[in-house]
Amino acid sequence: MSVHSKLYEGKAKILYTTDDPEVLLADFKDDATAFNAQKRGTILGKGQINCSISSQLFKQLEAHGIKTHFIDSPSPNQMRVRSVKILPLEVVVRNIAAGSLCQQTGLPVGKLLKQPLVEFYYKNDQLGDPLLTRDRLLLMELATPEQVDAITNLALQINQFLSGFWQQCGITLVDFKLEFGLDSQQQLLLADEISPDTCRLWNTAEADPNRRVMDKDRFRRDLGNVEDAYQEVLQRVLQAVESKN
Amino acid sequence: MSVHSKLYEGKAKILYTTDDPEVLLADFKDDATAFNAQKRGTILGKGQINCSISSQLFKQLEAHGIKTHFIDSPSPNQMRVRSVKILPLEVVVRNIAAGSLCQQTGLPVGKLLKQPLVEFYYKNDQLGDPLLTRDRLLLMELATPEQVDAITNLALQINQFLSGFWQQCGITLVDFKLEFGLDSQQQLLLADEISPDTCRLWNTAEADPNRRVMDKDRFRRDLGNVEDAYQEVLQRVLQAVESKN
Repeated sequence: MSVHSKLYEGKAKILYTTDDPEVLLADFKDDATAFNAQKRGTILGKGQINCSISSQLFKQLEAHGIKTHFIDSPSPNQMRVRSVKILPLEVVVRNIAAGSLCQQTGLPVGKLLKQPLVEFYYKNDQLGDPLLTRDRLLLMELATPEQVDAITNLALQINQFLSGFWQQCGITLVDFKLEFGLDSQQQLLLADEISPDTCRLWNTAEADPNRRVMDKDRFRRDLGNVEDAYQEVLQRVLQAVESKN
Repeated sequence: MSVHSKLYEGKAKILYTTDDPEVLLADFKDDATAFNAQKRGTILGKGQINCSISSQLFKQLEAHGIKTHFIDSPSPNQMRVRSVKILPLEVVVRNIAAGSLCQQTGLPVGKLLKQPLVEFYYKNDQLGDPLLTRDRLLLMELATPEQVDAITNLALQINQFLSGFWQQCGITLVDFKLEFGLDSQQQLLLADEISPDTCRLWNTAEADPNRRVMDKDRFRRDLGNVEDAYQEVLQRVLQAVESKN
């Protein structure tokens, strides 16, 4: 596979074109950002860790019947993916109240939700990724009603599978963000990544509200031991995958 | 009617108990606040103007079959209302994009919406009255699904009636905020007020984006002639009501 030019550089990944117009190469960076890129830093090894975790999870999801953009991982921090047109939506699934949900509603952090909450945010840095109601999303023509329904169903299926998978890792899946894209046949594919950058992951055996955090909140909230936590998540994922095979 | 003690003082009104436990007296103040009370001022005559406009509109809505808390107006800045438990929701109906909708979505101010948008905000000053999705509203148990549906239908009916009424006044109803309450029989009543404090009202004949403003945006955005605009709205309402009778 010959890599052509840089197509797009995001906060956590660089996308390159390849000799196949339907295939892109994603290069995972160690760069870390938070609070709409107002906070910036580096998490050493993050590129490789997140690429490895995402690759494993995409493979598991594919085996479970969920269509993703993942093809393979030619090197530890690189992933070959199907070229898709990303919908400008951040799809957040929440099992336990945390983050902006608590800030905006007053719900206490850690409150178990009666049922998973699927939320849509407008992927727009300039506007600060605002929460969308279904009506606003449709008014702005960010997706069709059919796409919203399909994404909601997929997000719930993915949540059910991933919650079980993380449970096998001794990790509680608090919430996570997904992105979806359309391939050249207008087929909806799960895209982006699934990693400690995009999930809130709590060490199930740990009750302490700071020590249990195994995700980007360690970076956001300056909790320390960021690299260790990411590395620990990867090890647990690899163990869980191995015990399945 | 003997007035008893002060029950509650809000930003724009004081509520007093009366000798009838089912009836409250609302005293409309000249105090003006904006941006979650960070900006404060006085609009001379506002109490009387808003009480008069609201009284006329509640009477019109009642005649149109919409149940409201309005009983009568014993003096220019006072309204007798049915005692209700206010639902902690700000129900916003939008016909044209303006205000926070534009700030949060990037839609241009003045864009005509294909259909009216009914939105719910959590009435909570501490949290800054955040936008609610239907799922968040239900999760927080701020209302039942049946109440949300009933309020949405009422809001659309009220919008249809008021849009026509304001049109007769030569005024374009851009958007407005409603509050609803439950009486002792758990009956849903339109409450609060309908005035230039709670509606965006544009002079239909005026194209200039600042000069057309006839509502609290004149105060929010320091456009001047606030009292004149409020007075002009009242005069047009009274004329429209008179021409109907």
